[in-house]
Amino acid sequence: MNAEKMHEILNGGTEATIRREVLNVLCESEFHRDLEWSRSEHRQKVREWVTTIGEKGWGALGFDPEYGGGGDMAGFLTAFETLAYHDLSLTIKFGVQFGLFAGSIHNLGSEKHFRKYLNDAGHARLPGCFAMTETGHGSNVAGLKTTITWDSTAKGFIINTPDRSAWKDYIGNAAEDAQLATVFGQLEVDGENHGVHAILVPIRDESGKTLPGVTTEDDGLKIGLNGVDNGRLAFDKVVVPAENLLDRFGSVDEGGKYSSPIESRNRRFFTMLGTLVGGRVSIAAAALSASKSALTVAIRYADRRRQFGPPEKEEILLLDYLSHQRRLLPRLARAYAVHFAVRHLSEKFIEEDSEEGRRKVEILAASVKPTATWHAMDTIQGCREACGGQGYLAENRFGDLKADIDVFTTFEGDNTILLQLVAKENLKAFQRKLGKGGFGALLGLAGEGLGWWIRKRNPLARLSRSVYSSTKSMGEALRFREKRMLLDIARQFQKDRKIGIDAGETVIRLQPQLLEYAQAFGDQLCFEQFREAIEEETDPDVSGSLKDLLHLFALDVLHQNRGWFLEVGYFSKGTSSGLSAEIDRLCRHLRPDALALVDAFGIPDELLMAPIALE
Amino acid sequence: MNAEKMHEILNGGTEATIRREVLNVLCESEFHRDLEWSRSEHRQKVREWVTTIGEKGWGALGFDPEYGGGGDMAGFLTAFETLAYHDLSLTIKFGVQFGLFAGSIHNLGSEKHFRKYLNDAGHARLPGCFAMTETGHGSNVAGLKTTITWDSTAKGFIINTPDRSAWKDYIGNAAEDAQLATVFGQLEVDGENHGVHAILVPIRDESGKTLPGVTTEDDGLKIGLNGVDNGRLAFDKVVVPAENLLDRFGSVDEGGKYSSPIESRNRRFFTMLGTLVGGRVSIAAAALSASKSALTVAIRYADRRRQFGPPEKEEILLLDYLSHQRRLLPRLARAYAVHFAVRHLSEKFIEEDSEEGRRKVEILAASVKPTATWHAMDTIQGCREACGGQGYLAENRFGDLKADIDVFTTFEGDNTILLQLVAKENLKAFQRKLGKGGFGALLGLAGEGLGWWIRKRNPLARLSRSVYSSTKSMGEALRFREKRMLLDIARQFQKDRKIGIDAGETVIRLQPQLLEYAQAFGDQLCFEQFREAIEEETDPDVSGSLKDLLHLFALDVLHQNRGWFLEVGYFSKGTSSGLSAEIDRLCRHLRPDALALVDAFGIPDELLMAPIALE
Repeated sequence: MNAEKMHEILNGGTEATIRREVLNVLCESEFHRDLEWSRSEHRQKVREWVTTIGEKGWGALGFDPEYGGGGDMAGFLTAFETLAYHDLSLTIKFGVQFGLFAGSIHNLGSEKHFRKYLNDAGHARLPGCFAMTETGHGSNVAGLKTTITWDSTAKGFIINTPDRSAWKDYIGNAAEDAQLATVFGQLEVDGENHGVHAILVPIRDESGKTLPGVTTEDDGLKIGLNGVDNGRLAFDKVVVPAENLLDRFGSVDEGGKYSSPIESRNRRFFTMLGTLVGGRVSIAAAALSASKSALTVAIRYADRRRQFGPPEKEEILLLDYLSHQRRLLPRLARAYAVHFAVRHLSEKFIEEDSEEGRRKVEILAASVKPTATWHAMDTIQGCREACGGQGYLAENRFGDLKADIDVFTTFEGDNTILLQLVAKENLKAFQRKLGKGGFGALLGLAGEGLGWWIRKRNPLARLSRSVYSSTKSMGEALRFREKRMLLDIARQFQKDRKIGIDAGETVIRLQPQLLEYAQAFGDQLCFEQFREAIEEETDPDVSGSLKDLLHLFALDVLHQNRGWFLEVGYFSKGTSSGLSAEIDRLCRHLRPDALALVDAFGIPDELLMAPIALE
Repeated sequence: MNAEKMHEILNGGTEATIRREVLNVLCESEFHRDLEWSRSEHRQKVREWVTTIGEKGWGALGFDPEYGGGGDMAGFLTAFETLAYHDLSLTIKFGVQFGLFAGSIHNLGSEKHFRKYLNDAGHARLPGCFAMTETGHGSNVAGLKTTITWDSTAKGFIINTPDRSAWKDYIGNAAEDAQLATVFGQLEVDGENHGVHAILVPIRDESGKTLPGVTTEDDGLKIGLNGVDNGRLAFDKVVVPAENLLDRFGSVDEGGKYSSPIESRNRRFFTMLGTLVGGRVSIAAAALSASKSALTVAIRYADRRRQFGPPEKEEILLLDYLSHQRRLLPRLARAYAVHFAVRHLSEKFIEEDSEEGRRKVEILAASVKPTATWHAMDTIQGCREACGGQGYLAENRFGDLKADIDVFTTFEGDNTILLQLVAKENLKAFQRKLGKGGFGALLGLAGEGLGWWIRKRNPLARLSRSVYSSTKSMGEALRFREKRMLLDIARQFQKDRKIGIDAGETVIRLQPQLLEYAQAFGDQLCFEQFREAIEEETDPDVSGSLKDLLHLFALDVLHQNRGWFLEVGYFSKGTSSGLSAEIDRLCRHLRPDALALVDAFGIPDELLMAPIALE
């Protein structure tokens, strides 16, 4: 298979220019990294890099040209994804400054804020931070305790931290650099709480001195990302002018009257949170870049390193061992699948602007972000182990990749919380489709449009071995899994409701199923996006390899979940027990292309760094 | 459940005294750790600690009192396991100095070596290293390229490194501290190769200066264990006296005549390697200690941290969420199971001294070491994620635990290599049992003693739901899995042999099955050891909790592998699909005891360190 052609499929298109530009800059000597830097040296370097990048305008690519931006959100996402081949501290500091801080002004503010801040924030001339999470409240944003209180005398707002658990925590840029903070808290006007809003609070002057009423703390050493200065913030009745309230979704007039374009407090809250979905899109893309780096290092090494073999003959290449192929190639196949899922998510994120469309993007992101970040954790670890002792040396990169990526499963929405969101939203949509007719109506629906899975529920209609080689059969199996799981969950909710059990209790009881369902949804999504992307390819050489990867991905998912497929009668015992041999066959078949398939990622040697990938 | 009583079961007995002594010392101010130490500060501290510990004699506990030892191998293992609640760099440097270096003299040398070196090596007055692995040869020890050549003129041996791939690599203590090295290489006498032997080679003088002909290199920054000075060694025709050859399994007399108590070169090699099994026993125990630390931190935090909940009510404790219980409690149950498997392994390691007994211990160790180390990796990561952002702060310990434990899956025998060893050895034993009668004979055997699994192979004899609650049924299911997998593999080998396929090729083709089999063997081993330990307990309170943990462990294994059980017809669909709800039920049932179950590990707060575990 031709690596160049595959590279074009993965990284061609309109964003190839910005991608090339970013890679070229990152290969310059100014961006040279040293894995042995102390924390303060590392922070200093990352600070300088962000300044350099800020001057190039990549951080403002997504904003309107009127405010110094590039009007190119796709370019911004590509820059982010490409930066993730370099030091992930740089990627995250970039994300904090431009995506979260400048992005919050862009998404939650109005014209006056854009004019005043966006150009400087988008070029790193105004360092800022995004202060949402509190020590006591991470996932439960609605429960934040920081208060933003309207002061009718001062015609401004008082920002206050009531207790230790309400300190802003883990805030990137907060420990050293940020001068301005987007602070989230409960907006209170005349004793009435209007829910969580965001407001701009100056925290340091230009010399870096903390302003009165603000206390900062350094989060100290972290598992990874130590080039980012995460910290804590507390506010002791800090007063800011009225205009600092980011007022797209709620404002207070001079007379102290609160108004919002969105009446429902609940809908307002979720609409506000929804504008932050870009962070999840970026994080998914960055995690995928890290997976690609790890796979490139491990597969290149396995194609050179020999160990054991028949007596008196040359030892065997690691990658010629089936067990080694099974360690690396299904993970490679999943990386390709995630690639197309992330691409789909990015496109939808850029395209959709209706409320319904945005909601769909949120669900997509809540599915793809956990899929991509857990895949990265699993892949980097698998690759580390596949490289043995060499993999344990810091110079070979698995150490920083592992340590930096770890928190990707937690921040920008904890993976398990996001998966529950996916499950609940899909469940709601499913229930809405059923209307009030209950499961009688379901059967009606089934007879019309959803018949395919009703048929599949019949054990006599067991899937034949066509699932081993037919893309269509694989897709059907994955779709069946998703729909059937959702149906089973809906039934449980209905049963519980009938006997008067509170839906909240049912949710807790069904958490394991909800999480499993959401993973099934994510697998199916990756498969569909991968399959659609292949359909567009005409070059038989490249599309053949892509199809093999798609099948390997699908068979691996089916094999991992064969217990479920057997339980519901979708697989016969024979079909199920043959899956492993089919995976073996595909691994052997893909083995000669393995090197080209990672070279197609196009990661420059200067960024890979790992000596075992370069010799 | 009473944590004190459980602690007595886990950590009581004759070793409680040395355990308490080690814990007391580690809590002293001299052993205070700082996670922010630079690499050189860290190395210096660990060096000092090893010296302190050396003076206390813990490193020589396993040796004969005649050579300054304590004659207490169980005490040595307990000291090692207990040290692993502290900095794992200390544990590993301890293991290198006393287990590997002094241990190699003890296991491979003879009286003259014991007299000359053992007292000093066992008290850290003679720092040494164990130079087996080469850059080009890790797992394949037989392929080492370093040469040990008899020089008839000098009446000594010439140690030589022929090329770059033959440098000794990843050698603990080699970069800075070791003065004497146990070097493994090909013994050549008069042009004849006698296979791998070990010899003592001085590499530094007492001032730390490298000796002529020796070149050292620092392995540099590693993912973890940076308090250990791993390095590389090369020898340029270094001459050492004849007496330096560790000659238990092979010696060369003054006339240059080689002799060995073991005629077969192959058996000699494996016997020599077999003496090193103590390292695997220790590593399994240390990995388990790390799992226990992580579980203690995560479960204590989950029992305090609240997030989300019904409106207007206090938020819910993380540990009251079923999804959180399922993250942590099956891992806790497995930690208990591994505890008893490690205890069994240690006992057998100490007891067995027949050749057959030692061979059994090797297989046990080759099974328990991968089980314990992968469990540690999985558990620490799961615990990290379960603690969210707090888990990502270095102070909460998951960072160093993760980074330090990572290489445990690779060193002292790569896990996948060890599992293949387990599979191959058990397969051989199985085939021996069959004798030359082939599968006809098998059926004969089956009719007599192995009938239970022949019956189980009958789909009509499907297991009922008794597997949900009957310890006996669970054990049968796990035993069946192990035996049946072995039978299936044996059949494949027989088929291949019939059509003339080389056994080496069959091994490569069946690698995935061999690995899966070995994991089944390990699961079954853990279960049996756990079950036997419970039978000895009479206190109903404690034995009830242990039984719940045993069942949770077993059901988790059955659930993970239900695909296989369904394929072979051992589970009905109904039995299989009910497993998850049984796991839920056990999790909820064990939840009130969760805190006591980790407190029973008895890790002092001073060693846990993590603020989220102590508040």
